[in-house]
Amino acid sequence: MFVHTVFFWLKEKENEQARQQLHAGLKELATIDEIQTAYVGAPADTRRPVIDHTFDFSITFVFSDDASQERYQVHPEHLAFIDACKHLWERVQVYDAVS
Amino acid sequence: MFVHTVFFWLKEKENEQARQQLHAGLKELATIDEIQTAYVGAPADTRRPVIDHTFDFSITFVFSDDASQERYQVHPEHLAFIDACKHLWERVQVYDAVS
Repeated sequence: MFVHTVFFWLKEKENEQARQQLHAGLKELATIDEIQTAYVGAPADTRRPVIDHTFDFSITFVFSDDASQERYQVHPEHLAFIDACKHLWERVQVYDAVS
Repeated sequence: MFVHTVFFWLKEKENEQARQQLHAGLKELATIDEIQTAYVGAPADTRRPVIDHTFDFSITFVFSDDASQERYQVHPEHLAFIDACKHLWERVQVYDAVS
């Protein structure tokens, strides 16, 4: 299994339209057929020193193998999402794990 | 859904016994019955500027709701894992997301 986790920090945290646009874009992204299981989230209410809750959205996309994750990276709908939404975030942090 | 993601950095990266002990502990942790779906991973081979591949292990534990994640936090097997393995890591980074 390949678990692709990305955290997004909005450029304009107070801009509700930007927030909704990114959220909608991520939910659409999650429908790409290469993804086996998809979670699109926002920070939980948990607060402990080891928790980073500063991000605005997260995605956890599970792929059956490396190859499907590679196809997702160059999938036209993924590239279209980046083109449409990249102006909305100031930072993304990616973690890729295999198990 | 509640997605609890944790990245672990070993204190002694060259200590194979410590690495195996933490990995075994995480795989045992993943069997706690409050967890709906569990992934225990290590960094993938992907390398892009936005990817942090410096961690040694990751867990992605999916819970059906906040309450089951709270029960997991105080579960005896979770507390036993922390007691047995906390000397092995130099850093943990947690991200909690709800969707």
